[in-house]
Amino acid sequence: MKFCRFGDVGNERVGAVDNEGRIRDLSGKIERLRSSDFAGGALEALSGVDVAGLPLVEGEPRLGIPYEGISKMICIGLNYSDHALEAGMQPPEKPIVFLKAPSALCGPYEDTIQPVDSTKLDWEVELGVVIGREARYIDEAEAQDFIAGYCVVNDISERAFQMEGGQWDKGKGCDSFGPVGPWLVTKDEVADPQALDLWLDVNGERMQTGNTSTMIFGVDTLVSHCSRYMTLMPGDIIATGTPPGVGMGKKPEPVWLRPGDTIELGVTGLGRQRQRVVRYEEAVAGP
Amino acid sequence: MKFCRFGDVGNERVGAVDNEGRIRDLSGKIERLRSSDFAGGALEALSGVDVAGLPLVEGEPRLGIPYEGISKMICIGLNYSDHALEAGMQPPEKPIVFLKAPSALCGPYEDTIQPVDSTKLDWEVELGVVIGREARYIDEAEAQDFIAGYCVVNDISERAFQMEGGQWDKGKGCDSFGPVGPWLVTKDEVADPQALDLWLDVNGERMQTGNTSTMIFGVDTLVSHCSRYMTLMPGDIIATGTPPGVGMGKKPEPVWLRPGDTIELGVTGLGRQRQRVVRYEEAVAGP
Repeated sequence: MKFCRFGDVGNERVGAVDNEGRIRDLSGKIERLRSSDFAGGALEALSGVDVAGLPLVEGEPRLGIPYEGISKMICIGLNYSDHALEAGMQPPEKPIVFLKAPSALCGPYEDTIQPVDSTKLDWEVELGVVIGREARYIDEAEAQDFIAGYCVVNDISERAFQMEGGQWDKGKGCDSFGPVGPWLVTKDEVADPQALDLWLDVNGERMQTGNTSTMIFGVDTLVSHCSRYMTLMPGDIIATGTPPGVGMGKKPEPVWLRPGDTIELGVTGLGRQRQRVVRYEEAVAGP
Repeated sequence: MKFCRFGDVGNERVGAVDNEGRIRDLSGKIERLRSSDFAGGALEALSGVDVAGLPLVEGEPRLGIPYEGISKMICIGLNYSDHALEAGMQPPEKPIVFLKAPSALCGPYEDTIQPVDSTKLDWEVELGVVIGREARYIDEAEAQDFIAGYCVVNDISERAFQMEGGQWDKGKGCDSFGPVGPWLVTKDEVADPQALDLWLDVNGERMQTGNTSTMIFGVDTLVSHCSRYMTLMPGDIIATGTPPGVGMGKKPEPVWLRPGDTIELGVTGLGRQRQRVVRYEEAVAGP
Protein backbone atom coordinates (compact mmCIF):
# COMPACT_ATOMS: atom_id res chain seq x y z
CA MET A 1 0.00 0.00 0.00
CA LYS A 2 0.86 3.63 -0.38
CA PHE A 3 0.14 5.67 2.72
CA CYS A 4 0.06 9.43 3.02
CA ARG A 5 -1.13 12.10 5.44
CA PHE A 6 -3.18 14.98 4.08
CA GLY A 7 -4.56 18.17 5.57
CA ASP A 8 -3.33 21.19 7.48
CA VAL A 9 -0.26 21.04 9.72
CA GLY A 10 -1.12 19.19 12.92
CA ASN A 11 -4.53 18.07 11.61
CA GLU A 12 -3.46 15.59 8.96
CA ARG A 13 -5.65 12.59 8.20
CA VAL A 14 -4.41 9.26 6.94
CA GLY A 15 -4.85 8.53 3.27
CA ALA A 16 -4.19 5.67 0.90
CA VAL A 17 -3.21 6.16 -2.72
CA ASP A 18 -5.18 4.25 -5.34
CA ASN A 19 -3.99 2.80 -8.63
CA GLU A 20 -4.68 6.10 -10.40
CA GLY A 21 -2.56 8.01 -7.88
CA ARG A 22 -5.59 9.61 -6.23
CA ILE A 23 -5.80 10.00 -2.49
CA ARG A 24 -8.50 7.99 -0.72
CA ASP A 25 -9.55 8.79 2.84
CA LEU A 26 -8.31 6.06 5.15
CA SER A 27 -9.27 7.84 8.37
CA GLY A 28 -12.31 5.58 8.80
CA LYS A 29 -9.91 2.66 9.22
CA ILE A 30 -7.06 4.27 11.15
CA GLU A 31 -6.96 7.58 12.98
CA ARG A 32 -3.22 8.13 13.05
CA LEU A 33 -0.31 6.48 11.30
CA ARG A 34 2.40 6.29 13.93
CA SER A 35 5.80 4.64 13.69
CA SER A 36 5.34 3.35 17.25
CA ASP A 37 2.58 1.10 15.85
CA PHE A 38 4.67 -0.29 12.98
CA ALA A 39 6.25 -3.13 14.96
CA GLY A 40 2.82 -4.23 16.16
CA GLY A 41 1.69 -4.73 12.58
CA ALA A 42 -0.27 -1.52 11.97
CA LEU A 43 0.70 -1.44 8.29
CA GLU A 44 0.09 -5.14 7.65
CA ALA A 45 -3.32 -4.89 9.34
CA LEU A 46 -4.42 -2.47 6.63
CA SER A 47 -3.08 -4.47 3.71
CA GLY A 48 -6.47 -6.04 3.00
CA VAL A 49 -8.31 -2.71 2.71
CA ASP A 50 -10.13 -2.16 -0.59
CA VAL A 51 -8.50 1.17 -1.42
CA ALA A 52 -10.64 1.77 -4.51
CA GLY A 53 -13.70 1.54 -2.28
CA LEU A 54 -12.56 4.30 0.10
CA PRO A 55 -13.93 7.86 -0.18
CA LEU A 56 -12.07 9.93 -2.72
CA VAL A 57 -10.39 13.03 -1.28
CA GLU A 58 -11.48 16.11 -3.21
CA GLY A 59 -9.18 18.91 -4.30
CA GLU A 60 -5.46 19.04 -3.74
CA PRO A 61 -4.86 18.97 -0.03
CA ARG A 62 -1.48 19.67 1.51
CA LEU A 63 0.58 16.54 2.16
CA GLY A 64 2.53 16.08 5.37
CA ILE A 65 5.27 13.63 6.19
CA PRO A 66 3.52 10.31 5.40
CA TYR A 67 3.60 9.02 8.99
CA GLU A 68 4.27 10.36 12.48
CA GLY A 69 7.31 9.72 14.63
CA ILE A 70 10.71 9.90 12.98
CA SER A 71 13.27 9.89 15.76
CA LYS A 72 16.23 10.08 13.43
CA MET A 73 17.19 10.30 9.78
CA ILE A 74 20.47 8.61 9.01
CA CYS A 75 22.08 9.76 5.78
CA ILE A 76 24.67 7.95 3.70
CA GLY A 77 27.33 9.98 1.93
CA LEU A 78 28.86 9.30 -1.48
CA ASN A 79 26.97 6.05 -2.03
CA TYR A 80 26.82 6.17 -5.83
CA SER A 81 30.20 5.68 -7.46
CA ASP A 82 29.48 8.20 -10.22
CA HIS A 83 28.34 10.80 -7.65
CA ALA A 84 31.54 10.26 -5.64
CA LEU A 85 33.43 10.94 -8.87
CA GLU A 86 31.61 14.21 -9.57
CA ALA A 87 32.23 15.30 -5.96
CA GLY A 88 35.93 14.65 -6.51
CA MET A 89 36.01 12.04 -3.73
CA GLN A 90 37.20 8.43 -3.63
CA PRO A 91 34.36 5.92 -3.30
CA PRO A 92 34.28 5.03 0.39
CA GLU A 93 35.38 1.63 1.68
CA LYS A 94 32.62 1.62 4.28
CA PRO A 95 29.38 3.61 4.33
CA ILE A 96 29.79 7.23 5.38
CA VAL A 97 27.12 7.96 7.97
CA PHE A 98 25.81 11.29 9.19
CA LEU A 99 22.57 12.53 10.73
CA LYS A 100 19.95 15.03 9.63
CA ALA A 101 18.42 17.11 12.42
CA PRO A 102 14.79 16.06 13.04
CA SER A 103 13.83 19.75 12.92
CA ALA A 104 14.76 19.72 9.22
CA LEU A 105 12.09 17.20 8.22
CA CYS A 106 8.99 18.40 6.39
CA GLY A 107 6.30 17.42 3.93
CA PRO A 108 7.12 16.75 0.27
CA TYR A 109 5.72 20.03 -1.08
CA GLU A 110 6.90 22.46 1.63
CA ASP A 111 8.95 25.45 0.59
CA THR A 112 12.71 25.03 0.76
CA ILE A 113 13.92 27.82 3.00
CA GLN A 114 17.26 29.25 1.97
CA PRO A 115 19.05 30.07 5.23
CA VAL A 116 20.48 33.51 5.91
CA ASP A 117 24.08 33.67 4.57
CA SER A 118 23.50 30.63 2.35
CA THR A 119 25.42 30.81 -0.92
CA LYS A 120 25.59 27.17 -2.07
CA LEU A 121 22.15 25.62 -1.79
CA ASP A 122 21.95 22.22 -3.47
CA TRP A 123 19.65 19.24 -4.02
CA GLU A 124 19.94 15.45 -3.63
CA VAL A 125 17.19 13.02 -4.65
CA GLU A 126 17.43 9.84 -2.58
CA LEU A 127 15.71 6.57 -1.84
CA GLY A 128 14.61 6.55 1.79
CA VAL A 129 14.37 3.27 3.67
CA VAL A 130 11.77 3.27 6.45
CA ILE A 131 12.52 1.01 9.41
CA GLY A 132 9.68 -1.19 10.64
CA ARG A 133 11.00 -2.53 13.93
CA GLU A 134 13.89 -2.08 16.30
CA ALA A 135 17.08 -3.25 14.67
CA ARG A 136 20.50 -3.80 16.17
CA TYR A 137 23.29 -6.00 14.84
CA ILE A 138 21.17 -7.17 11.94
CA ASP A 139 22.67 -9.39 9.25
CA GLU A 140 22.23 -8.37 5.63
CA ALA A 141 20.24 -11.54 4.99
CA GLU A 142 17.57 -10.53 7.52
CA ALA A 143 17.54 -6.79 6.76
CA GLN A 144 14.28 -6.96 4.81
CA ASP A 145 12.48 -8.18 7.94
CA PHE A 146 13.25 -4.84 9.58
CA ILE A 147 12.11 -2.63 6.71
CA ALA A 148 8.57 -1.24 6.62
CA GLY A 149 8.84 0.41 3.23
CA TYR A 150 10.33 3.15 1.14
CA CYS A 151 9.88 6.84 0.41
CA VAL A 152 11.40 9.70 -1.55
CA VAL A 153 13.78 12.01 0.32
CA ASN A 154 15.38 15.24 -0.85
CA ASP A 155 18.61 15.57 1.14
CA ILE A 156 18.82 19.33 0.66
CA SER A 157 22.30 20.61 1.43
CA GLU A 158 24.09 23.91 1.92
CA ARG A 159 27.57 23.10 0.65
CA ALA A 160 29.37 26.03 2.27
CA PHE A 161 27.85 25.14 5.65
CA GLN A 162 28.51 21.45 5.00
CA MET A 163 32.21 21.89 4.35
CA GLU A 164 32.77 24.36 7.20
CA GLY A 165 34.89 22.55 9.79
CA GLY A 166 34.64 19.13 8.16
CA GLN A 167 31.46 17.83 9.82
CA TRP A 168 28.56 17.81 7.36
CA ASP A 169 25.61 17.99 9.77
CA LYS A 170 25.60 21.80 9.83
CA GLY A 171 24.90 21.94 6.11
CA LYS A 172 22.33 19.14 6.12
CA GLY A 173 20.07 19.97 9.06
CA CYS A 174 18.68 23.43 8.31
CA ASP A 175 14.91 23.81 8.63
CA SER A 176 13.08 22.41 5.56
CA PHE A 177 16.17 20.50 4.34
CA GLY A 178 14.47 17.10 4.67
CA PRO A 179 11.28 16.73 2.59
CA VAL A 180 9.89 13.20 3.08
CA GLY A 181 7.20 11.56 0.96
CA PRO A 182 4.70 12.00 -0.62
CA TRP A 183 4.04 8.38 0.32
CA LEU A 184 5.22 5.60 2.56
CA VAL A 185 5.18 2.68 0.13
CA THR A 186 5.17 -0.68 1.86
CA LYS A 187 7.95 -2.99 0.83
CA ASP A 188 5.63 -5.54 -0.80
CA GLU A 189 5.04 -2.94 -3.54
CA VAL A 190 8.74 -2.53 -4.26
CA ALA A 191 9.82 -5.67 -6.08
CA ASP A 192 13.50 -4.72 -6.20
CA PRO A 193 14.78 -1.67 -4.29
CA GLN A 194 18.02 -1.92 -6.28
CA ALA A 195 16.28 -1.31 -9.61
CA LEU A 196 14.59 2.06 -9.11
CA ASP A 197 15.08 5.13 -11.28
CA LEU A 198 15.70 8.45 -9.54
CA TRP A 199 15.34 11.86 -11.16
CA LEU A 200 15.39 15.51 -10.18
CA ASP A 201 14.56 18.65 -12.17
CA VAL A 202 15.23 22.28 -11.35
CA ASN A 203 12.90 24.70 -13.13
CA GLY A 204 11.93 21.89 -15.50
CA GLU A 205 15.48 21.02 -16.47
CA ARG A 206 16.67 17.51 -15.73
CA MET A 207 19.57 17.69 -13.28
CA GLN A 208 19.84 14.23 -11.73
CA THR A 209 19.29 10.86 -13.34
CA GLY A 210 20.23 7.63 -11.69
CA ASN A 211 19.24 4.17 -10.71
CA THR A 212 19.60 2.45 -7.36
CA SER A 213 21.41 -0.38 -9.16
CA THR A 214 24.59 1.73 -9.04
CA MET A 215 24.64 2.13 -5.28
CA ILE A 216 27.99 1.21 -3.77
CA PHE A 217 26.30 -0.20 -0.68
CA GLY A 218 22.82 -1.61 -1.24
CA VAL A 219 19.78 -1.24 0.99
CA ASP A 220 20.29 -4.46 2.94
CA THR A 221 23.95 -3.70 3.52
CA LEU A 222 23.11 -0.22 4.78
CA VAL A 223 20.47 -1.44 7.23
CA SER A 224 22.89 -4.04 8.53
CA HIS A 225 25.78 -1.59 8.73
CA CYS A 226 23.90 1.21 10.48
CA SER A 227 22.39 -1.26 12.96
CA ARG A 228 25.90 -2.02 14.19
CA TYR A 229 26.45 1.60 15.23
CA MET A 230 23.08 2.60 16.65
CA THR A 231 19.70 1.02 17.28
CA LEU A 232 17.34 1.69 14.39
CA MET A 233 13.89 2.58 15.68
CA PRO A 234 10.56 2.05 13.90
CA GLY A 235 10.02 5.03 11.62
CA ASP A 236 13.70 5.91 11.38
CA ILE A 237 14.77 6.64 7.82
CA ILE A 238 18.01 5.77 6.11
CA ALA A 239 18.54 8.18 3.20
CA THR A 240 20.68 6.02 0.98
CA GLY A 241 22.73 8.60 -0.91
CA THR A 242 22.29 10.48 -4.16
CA PRO A 243 23.13 9.70 -7.78
CA PRO A 244 25.11 12.11 -10.02
CA GLY A 245 23.86 15.52 -11.01
CA VAL A 246 23.97 17.63 -7.88
CA GLY A 247 24.60 21.35 -8.34
CA MET A 248 28.03 21.13 -6.75
CA GLY A 249 29.19 18.80 -9.51
CA LYS A 250 27.93 20.73 -12.55
CA LYS A 251 30.46 21.76 -15.22
CA PRO A 252 31.91 24.14 -16.12
CA GLU A 253 30.61 25.84 -12.97
CA PRO A 254 28.56 24.61 -10.01
CA VAL A 255 24.87 25.50 -10.09
CA TRP A 256 23.19 26.66 -6.88
CA LEU A 257 19.52 27.01 -6.06
CA ARG A 258 18.11 30.52 -5.87
CA PRO A 259 14.89 31.94 -4.46
CA GLY A 260 12.07 31.34 -6.93
CA ASP A 261 13.51 28.09 -8.24
CA THR A 262 11.31 25.01 -8.34
CA ILE A 263 12.66 21.54 -7.55
CA GLU A 264 10.81 18.42 -8.67
CA LEU A 265 12.01 14.92 -7.95
CA GLY A 266 10.87 11.35 -7.79
CA VAL A 267 11.71 7.67 -7.53
CA THR A 268 10.03 4.85 -9.48
CA GLY A 269 6.81 3.84 -7.76
CA LEU A 270 7.34 6.13 -4.76
CA GLY A 271 5.76 9.33 -6.09
CA ARG A 272 7.16 12.78 -6.60
CA GLN A 273 7.97 15.87 -4.57
CA ARG A 274 8.01 19.54 -5.50
CA GLN A 275 9.59 22.40 -3.58
CA ARG A 276 9.79 26.11 -4.24
CA VAL A 277 12.90 27.87 -2.94
CA VAL A 278 12.22 30.90 -0.76
CA ARG A 279 14.48 33.21 1.20
CA TYR A 280 14.31 32.86 4.98
CA GLU A 281 12.87 36.35 5.31
CA GLU A 282 10.10 35.43 2.88
CA ALA A 283 9.33 32.22 4.77
CA VAL A 284 9.05 34.14 8.04
CA ALA A 285 6.80 36.78 6.52
CA GLY A 286 4.38 34.02 5.47
CA PRO A 287 2.04 33.91 2.49
CA MET B 1 15.85 24.36 41.08
CA LYS B 2 17.36 20.99 40.40
CA PHE B 3 14.97 18.60 38.70
CA CYS B 4 15.41 14.87 38.25
CA ARG B 5 13.34 11.85 37.29
CA PHE B 6 13.57 8.75 39.47
CA GLY B 7 12.18 5.24 39.22
CA ASP B 8 12.12 2.35 36.80
CA VAL B 9 12.40 2.88 33.06
CA GLY B 10 9.13 4.25 31.72
CA ASN B 11 7.71 4.83 35.20
CA GLU B 12 9.89 7.68 36.38
CA ARG B 13 8.47 10.27 38.77
CA VAL B 14 9.60 13.87 38.97
CA GLY B 15 11.90 14.81 41.80
CA ALA B 16 13.55 17.94 43.13
CA VAL B 17 16.96 17.94 44.76
CA ASP B 18 17.29 19.67 48.13
CA ASN B 19 20.23 21.58 49.54
CA GLU B 20 21.73 18.37 50.93
CA GLY B 21 21.55 16.69 47.53
CA ARG B 22 18.70 14.43 48.55
CA ILE B 23 15.83 13.69 46.20
CA ARG B 24 12.41 14.99 47.19
CA ASP B 25 9.26 13.72 45.56
CA LEU B 26 7.81 16.43 43.34
CA SER B 27 5.15 14.24 41.77
CA GLY B 28 2.45 15.84 43.93
CA LYS B 29 3.14 19.11 42.11
CA ILE B 30 3.82 17.90 38.58
CA GLU B 31 3.15 14.54 37.00
CA ARG B 32 5.61 14.67 34.13
CA LEU B 33 8.46 16.99 33.27
CA ARG B 34 8.21 17.46 29.52
CA SER B 35 10.25 19.73 27.30
CA SER B 36 7.08 20.61 25.40
CA ASP B 37 5.93 22.41 28.56
CA PHE B 38 9.15 24.43 29.03
CA ALA B 39 8.16 27.32 26.78
CA GLY B 40 4.86 27.63 28.63
CA GLY B 41 6.69 28.24 31.89
CA ALA B 42 6.50 24.77 33.49
CA LEU B 43 9.86 25.18 35.19
CA GLU B 44 9.26 28.74 36.39
CA ALA B 45 5.87 27.73 37.78
CA LEU B 46 7.64 25.37 40.18
CA SER B 47 10.30 27.83 41.30
CA GLY B 48 8.34 28.78 44.42
CA VAL B 49 7.99 25.21 45.69
CA ASP B 50 9.39 24.61 49.18
CA VAL B 51 11.68 21.73 48.22
CA ALA B 52 12.69 20.98 51.83
CA GLY B 53 9.03 20.44 52.64
CA LEU B 54 8.50 17.77 49.99
CA PRO B 55 8.49 14.06 50.88
CA LEU B 56 11.98 12.59 51.00
CA VAL B 57 12.56 9.76 48.54
CA GLU B 58 13.86 6.70 50.36
CA GLY B 59 16.67 4.48 49.15
CA GLU B 60 18.69 4.98 46.00
CA PRO B 61 16.29 4.86 43.09
CA ARG B 62 17.46 4.68 39.51
CA LEU B 63 17.72 8.08 37.83
CA GLY B 64 16.49 8.62 34.29
CA ILE B 65 17.19 11.47 31.91
CA PRO B 66 16.02 14.46 34.02
CA TYR B 67 13.17 15.44 31.69
CA GLU B 68 11.25 13.96 28.77
CA GLY B 69 11.48 14.96 25.14
CA ILE B 70 14.93 15.56 23.69
CA SER B 71 14.49 15.83 19.94
CA LYS B 72 18.17 16.39 19.27
CA MET B 73 21.53 16.66 20.96
CA ILE B 74 23.90 18.99 19.17
CA CYS B 75 27.54 18.44 20.01
CA ILE B 76 30.41 20.88 19.62
CA GLY B 77 33.83 19.53 18.65
CA LEU B 78 37.21 20.76 19.83
CA ASN B 79 35.81 23.64 21.87
CA TYR B 80 38.56 23.83 24.48
CA SER B 81 41.84 25.10 23.11
CA ASP B 82 43.91 22.72 25.25
CA HIS B 83 41.76 19.73 24.17
CA ALA B 84 42.24 20.70 20.52
CA LEU B 85 45.95 20.67 21.19
CA GLU B 86 45.93 17.18 22.73
CA ALA B 87 43.85 15.93 19.79
CA GLY B 88 46.50 17.30 17.45
CA MET B 89 43.99 19.63 15.77
CA GLN B 90 44.02 23.36 15.14
CA PRO B 91 41.47 25.28 17.24
CA PRO B 92 38.50 25.80 14.90
CA GLU B 93 37.62 29.23 13.53
CA LYS B 94 33.92 28.50 13.86
CA PRO B 95 32.16 25.94 16.07
CA ILE B 96 32.32 22.38 14.75
CA VAL B 97 28.82 20.95 14.96
CA PHE B 98 27.69 17.35 14.85
CA LEU B 99 24.70 15.39 16.14
CA LYS B 100 24.30 12.55 18.59
CA ALA B 101 21.63 10.00 17.71
CA PRO B 102 18.65 10.29 20.09
CA SER B 103 18.80 6.51 20.58
CA ALA B 104 22.16 7.03 22.34
CA LEU B 105 20.71 9.08 25.20
CA CYS B 106 20.30 7.48 28.61
CA GLY B 107 20.23 8.16 32.32
CA PRO B 108 23.34 9.26 34.20
CA TYR B 109 24.05 5.91 35.85
CA GLU B 110 23.26 3.53 32.98
CA ASP B 111 25.91 1.07 31.88
CA THR B 112 28.13 2.17 29.01
CA ILE B 113 27.75 -0.53 26.39
CA GLN B 114 30.93 -1.23 24.46
CA PRO B 115 29.81 -1.98 20.91
CA VAL B 116 30.86 -5.13 19.11
CA ASP B 117 34.20 -4.50 17.31
CA SER B 118 34.91 -1.44 19.46
CA THR B 119 38.61 -0.97 20.19
CA LYS B 120 38.90 2.72 21.13
CA LEU B 121 36.19 3.56 23.64
CA ASP B 122 36.67 7.01 25.19
CA TRP B 123 35.05 9.53 27.54
CA GLU B 124 34.25 13.27 27.36
CA VAL B 125 32.80 15.22 30.29
CA GLU B 126 30.81 18.21 29.01
CA LEU B 127 28.55 21.02 30.07
CA GLY B 128 25.12 20.51 28.48
CA VAL B 129 22.96 23.53 27.70
CA VAL B 130 19.22 22.80 27.79
CA ILE B 131 17.09 24.90 25.45
CA GLY B 132 13.92 26.42 26.95
CA ARG B 133 12.07 27.71 23.92
CA GLU B 134 12.26 27.62 20.13
CA ALA B 135 15.30 29.48 18.95
CA ARG B 136 16.29 30.54 15.45
CA TYR B 137 18.66 33.32 14.43
CA ILE B 138 19.22 34.32 18.04
CA ASP B 139 21.77 37.00 18.90
CA GLU B 140 24.38 36.23 21.54
CA ALA B 141 22.98 39.00 23.71
CA GLU B 142 19.58 37.30 23.93
CA ALA B 143 20.82 33.71 24.14
CA GLN B 144 20.14 33.42 27.88
CA ASP B 145 16.43 34.02 27.25
CA PHE B 146 16.34 30.76 25.31
CA ILE B 147 18.15 28.62 27.86
CA ALA B 148 16.20 26.59 30.44
CA GLY B 149 19.20 25.33 32.34
CA TYR B 150 22.23 23.10 32.39
CA CYS B 151 23.18 19.47 32.90
CA VAL B 152 26.14 17.13 32.82
CA VAL B 153 26.70 15.15 29.61
CA ASN B 154 29.20 12.38 28.93
CA ASP B 155 29.86 12.51 25.18
CA ILE B 156 31.06 8.91 25.01
CA SER B 157 32.96 8.23 21.81
CA GLU B 158 34.35 5.30 19.88
CA ARG B 159 37.37 6.84 18.20
CA ALA B 160 37.88 4.18 15.54
CA PHE B 161 34.22 4.47 14.51
CA GLN B 162 34.44 8.28 14.76
CA MET B 163 37.37 8.59 12.40
CA GLU B 164 36.07 6.03 9.88
CA GLY B 165 35.16 7.97 6.76
CA GLY B 166 35.58 11.40 8.30
CA GLN B 167 32.06 11.94 9.69
CA TRP B 168 32.04 11.64 13.46
CA ASP B 169 28.37 10.71 14.06
CA LYS B 170 29.04 6.98 13.70
CA GLY B 171 31.39 7.03 16.68
CA LYS B 172 29.21 9.28 18.81
CA GLY B 173 25.74 7.79 18.47
CA CYS B 174 26.03 4.20 19.71
CA ASP B 175 23.46 3.10 22.27
CA SER B 176 24.30 4.39 25.78
CA PHE B 177 26.84 6.94 24.45
CA GLY B 178 24.86 9.92 25.80
CA PRO B 179 24.29 9.86 29.57
CA VAL B 180 22.38 13.02 30.57
CA GLY B 181 21.91 14.32 34.11
CA PRO B 182 21.57 13.54 37.00
CA TRP B 183 19.77 16.88 37.16
CA LEU B 184 18.35 19.63 35.03
CA VAL B 185 19.58 22.68 36.93
CA THR B 186 17.65 25.82 36.06
CA LYS B 187 19.79 28.71 34.87
CA ASP B 188 19.03 30.89 37.90
CA GLU B 189 21.17 28.47 39.94
CA VAL B 190 24.16 28.82 37.62
CA ALA B 191 25.63 32.25 38.30
CA ASP B 192 28.25 32.02 35.55
CA PRO B 193 28.21 29.11 33.08
CA GLN B 194 31.73 30.12 32.02
CA ALA B 195 33.20 29.49 35.46
CA LEU B 196 32.37 25.82 36.10
CA ASP B 197 34.87 23.10 36.92
CA LEU B 198 34.58 19.82 35.02
CA TRP B 199 36.21 16.56 36.08
CA LEU B 200 36.20 12.92 35.08
CA ASP B 201 37.72 9.86 36.75
CA VAL B 202 38.22 6.35 35.40
CA ASN B 203 38.51 3.70 38.12
CA GLY B 204 39.11 6.47 40.64
CA GLU B 205 41.97 8.06 38.72
CA ARG B 206 41.50 11.67 37.65
CA MET B 207 41.59 11.83 33.85
CA GLN B 208 39.96 15.13 32.91
CA THR B 209 40.19 18.45 34.68
CA GLY B 210 38.97 21.64 33.16
CA ASN B 211 36.94 24.77 33.53
CA THR B 212 34.36 26.23 31.19
CA SER B 213 36.34 29.49 31.26
CA THR B 214 38.68 28.02 28.65
CA MET B 215 35.99 27.30 26.07
CA ILE B 216 36.85 28.72 22.68
CA PHE B 217 33.19 29.52 22.00
CA GLY B 218 31.12 30.30 25.08
CA VAL B 219 27.58 29.18 25.83
CA ASP B 220 25.85 32.26 24.44
CA THR B 221 27.92 32.15 21.26
CA LEU B 222 27.09 28.48 20.75
CA VAL B 223 23.35 28.98 21.20
CA SER B 224 23.44 31.87 18.75
CA HIS B 225 25.61 29.99 16.27
CA CYS B 226 23.62 26.75 16.27
CA SER B 227 20.34 28.67 15.96
CA ARG B 228 21.56 29.97 12.60
CA TYR B 229 21.80 26.44 11.19
CA MET B 230 18.76 24.71 12.69
CA THR B 231 15.83 25.57 14.91
CA LEU B 232 16.60 24.72 18.51
CA MET B 233 13.58 23.10 20.15
CA PRO B 234 12.68 23.14 23.85
CA GLY B 235 14.59 20.32 25.52
CA ASP B 236 17.28 20.17 22.86
CA ILE B 237 20.77 19.95 24.36
CA ILE B 238 23.95 21.56 23.15
CA ALA B 239 26.89 19.55 24.49
CA THR B 240 29.52 22.25 24.55
CA GLY B 241 32.72 20.27 24.08
CA THR B 242 35.20 18.61 26.38
CA PRO B 243 38.31 19.84 28.23
CA PRO B 244 41.67 18.04 28.04
CA GLY B 245 42.25 14.56 29.33
CA VAL B 246 40.40 12.24 27.00
CA GLY B 247 41.82 8.76 26.52
CA MET B 248 42.81 9.48 22.93
CA GLY B 249 45.18 12.21 24.11
CA LYS B 250 46.97 10.34 26.89
CA LYS B 251 50.78 10.02 26.71
CA PRO B 252 52.84 8.02 26.01
CA GLU B 253 49.98 5.88 24.76
CA PRO B 254 46.23 6.44 24.41
CA VAL B 255 44.08 4.89 27.14
CA TRP B 256 40.84 3.17 26.14
CA LEU B 257 37.93 2.08 28.31
CA ARG B 258 37.54 -1.63 28.94
CA PRO B 259 34.69 -3.74 30.28
CA GLY B 260 34.60 -3.48 34.05
CA ASP B 261 35.89 0.09 34.12
CA THR B 262 33.98 2.70 36.08
CA ILE B 263 33.63 6.27 34.85
CA GLU B 264 32.69 9.08 37.24
CA LEU B 265 32.27 12.68 36.17
CA GLY B 266 30.73 15.93 37.20
CA VAL B 267 30.41 19.67 36.73
CA THR B 268 30.25 22.29 39.52
CA GLY B 269 26.71 22.53 40.84
CA LEU B 270 25.26 20.13 38.27
CA GLY B 271 25.82 16.83 40.06
CA ARG B 272 27.74 13.75 39.08
CA GLN B 273 27.33 10.70 36.85
CA ARG B 274 28.72 7.17 37.13
CA GLN B 275 28.84 4.54 34.42
CA ARG B 276 30.16 1.00 34.39
CA VAL B 277 31.53 -0.27 31.08
CA VAL B 278 30.05 -3.56 29.89
CA ARG B 279 30.46 -5.55 26.72
CA TYR B 280 27.48 -5.56 24.35
CA GLU B 281 26.97 -9.29 24.91
CA GLU B 282 26.81 -8.68 28.67
CA ALA B 283 24.30 -5.85 28.26
CA VAL B 284 22.05 -8.05 26.14
CA ALA B 285 22.23 -10.93 28.60
CA GLY B 286 20.96 -8.59 31.32
CA PRO B 287 21.69 -8.63 35.04
